Amino acid sequence: MSAGASVGRVETRTARLFDEAAPLVLESGATLGPVDVAYETYGDLDPDGGNAVFICHALTGDAHAAGLHDGATRPGWWDNIIGPGRPIDTDRFHVICANLLGGCMGTTGPSSTDPSTGRAYGLRFPLFTVADLVTVHRALLEHLGIRRLVAAVGGSLGGMQVLQWALDHPEEVGAAVVICATARLSPQNIAFSAVAREAIMRDPQFHGGDYEAAGTRPDRGLAVARMMAHITYLSEEGMRARFGRRLQDADVPRFGFDADFQVESYLQHQGESFLRRFDANSYLYLTRVMDYFDPFDDLASLGRKLERVGTGFLVISFDTDWRFDTSHSRDIVRMLAAHRTPVSFREISSPHGHDSFLLDIPDYHQTVATFLDRVYRNRGGRG
Amino acid sequence: MSAGASVGRVETRTARLFDEAAPLVLESGATLGPVDVAYETYGDLDPDGGNAVFICHALTGDAHAAGLHDGATRPGWWDNIIGPGRPIDTDRFHVICANLLGGCMGTTGPSSTDPSTGRAYGLRFPLFTVADLVTVHRALLEHLGIRRLVAAVGGSLGGMQVLQWALDHPEEVGAAVVICATARLSPQNIAFSAVAREAIMRDPQFHGGDYEAAGTRPDRGLAVARMMAHITYLSEEGMRARFGRRLQDADVPRFGFDADFQVESYLQHQGESFLRRFDANSYLYLTRVMDYFDPFDDLASLGRKLERVGTGFLVISFDTDWRFDTSHSRDIVRMLAAHRTPVSFREISSPHGHDSFLLDIPDYHQTVATFLDRVYRNRGGRG
Repeated sequence: MSAGASVGRVETRTARLFDEAAPLVLESGATLGPVDVAYETYGDLDPDGGNAVFICHALTGDAHAAGLHDGATRPGWWDNIIGPGRPIDTDRFHVICANLLGGCMGTTGPSSTDPSTGRAYGLRFPLFTVADLVTVHRALLEHLGIRRLVAAVGGSLGGMQVLQWALDHPEEVGAAVVICATARLSPQNIAFSAVAREAIMRDPQFHGGDYEAAGTRPDRGLAVARMMAHITYLSEEGMRARFGRRLQDADVPRFGFDADFQVESYLQHQGESFLRRFDANSYLYLTRVMDYFDPFDDLASLGRKLERVGTGFLVISFDTDWRFDTSHSRDIVRMLAAHRTPVSFREISSPHGHDSFLLDIPDYHQTVATFLDRVYRNRGGRG
Repeated sequence: MSAGASVGRVETRTARLFDEAAPLVLESGATLGPVDVAYETYGDLDPDGGNAVFICHALTGDAHAAGLHDGATRPGWWDNIIGPGRPIDTDRFHVICANLLGGCMGTTGPSSTDPSTGRAYGLRFPLFTVADLVTVHRALLEHLGIRRLVAAVGGSLGGMQVLQWALDHPEEVGAAVVICATARLSPQNIAFSAVAREAIMRDPQFHGGDYEAAGTRPDRGLAVARMMAHITYLSEEGMRARFGRRLQDADVPRFGFDADFQVESYLQHQGESFLRRFDANSYLYLTRVMDYFDPFDDLASLGRKLERVGTGFLVISFDTDWRFDTSHSRDIVRMLAAHRTPVSFREISSPHGHDSFLLDIPDYHQTVATFLDRVYRNRGGRG
């Protein structure tokens, strides 16, 4: 466990950032309102507002990044890195984390009520981009009276938001920590997400996305999607160490189709527990937003963007991550460095694959802590 | 295309190898009868029966390995390697290929009628092992009056059968060609198969395996299973070359959940076309038989087995195969070599991942041809 302490008791708040009179305008031109955003904050905001750090969460994360909710025993999903004395040090920083647009944990998404029909949006929820996720984060900052971040930090889809934010609004992001992310999904990455979506959409309980109106849920498909995705979050090496070919309940194989190997019952558990906390339509939208993400696609406009970027980047990958392997991070680093954007890169050794970004790995946490310490000491120097 | 020609017009025959009076006795002790086996042969059998080569097929293969069925335009699944002048040269060898026990292409499997009920077996079909697959192959040889193979050849699950056969009955297998196989699935290998089975078994049309009686089929689950498995048969590199991030029908993304990227429509096509040729219960049994395969588990009995093995092995892997990567082949080679079994090993360079074993890759085909040429010239030398 990291040194440092928990932020203690926390609660999720909700802010209405857009409404029907002043809707969110998406990159596609579609409008959306109302838009509510669930968020949490940890640590005090300096009087000059100059110590804010934004945490961008990944596909299945939420606003509850750190601390404990009232009555809960399990802390937020990134509690090991956020807290007093921890790498994202709440004695220094005012930390903000918000559930993503399209999510299902308090922020407006496809399970929210469409005011024009009085029913859940379902697949009538507009498709959005990573830039749209950033637009909503920026609206939250404005709501909170914060004009600029000392840092934005995120892993996986979170890192993609951090990258987009720093490219589009570099003056707002002092430093960017982009962890096991990508600037462009490979066809294999897209393929895994596509099959996960197929599992959901082919579930007869999906009802074209209107499962809520039908009084049901595509649980079978969502569980299969989660199980498959989970394989890509672990490494072959990590699975060997953790499960090997060990059997679940017996010394000798039972020779049947029930879970017999430990890895089978682990995946079943992952699939089932996911159903309690996630919505199938949100899974569709938040995987699809990644497929289309391609911020380096237009090199001409990229050049103009990067000219203005004073943001200092830390890019981190993990050597056994095969969901977004190190070559994805290297591509980001190469593109930034080619445009003379300040960037540090570390590939961290860890047996835990893509999931490493969520774990307390000393070398990793120390790398983040050292970078943010320098950011803190230099704060205001760039703004 | 390999030099050489096609074997031309062929047909699948069926033999009843076991019946209720003289049933197949499985490794588990369960009995099964009748057992019919669909098979094909190519090339003439020498008068002394000394030129037989057995082809063991993989998970979704069948008896139709080479040549053309009457009226068909698409040849057998391994036509590029089998034929006059091809690496498995039918001018020299009498080649036999049989659909596996538990399959759905003419050999008795879970979709066959259970004589005790008059209905399809479904999940009442007994679980079997790779050794049981070999038992049925051996019964077919006996039926054909062949006592010994000059070689057994197979890729993936096919290679697992070849390995088992040579370990258990080395006097019957002059040479063994084991291609991109494994002697022990990793937890990641098991995990992918487990999730594929979950997709099938959670399909509401599965009906506990009795979908035929219910007049339906778990097509949704089977298609998802196939799509996911297909990702593991291709390499990241091969997918980049073949699909990249190219769109299917448009110059600009359509931003929706229909197949938009080429890789998505390719996988959908793979899933759909699979439904026309494969049975869901067979998929369950033939993946499960791989999970439990572990012929090197008992080192004491292995030592005794390998002492007797005069079979010459050729083990082949492909450098971009991540379904059964080269380490799996190296483990087989190490175990054989440690027991002084003659074994040659080649890792072939190919961008096509696990599927490489089905493709006409010159270095690969030349390696097989050279090995089998030596086998042919030395035939009878060991027997």
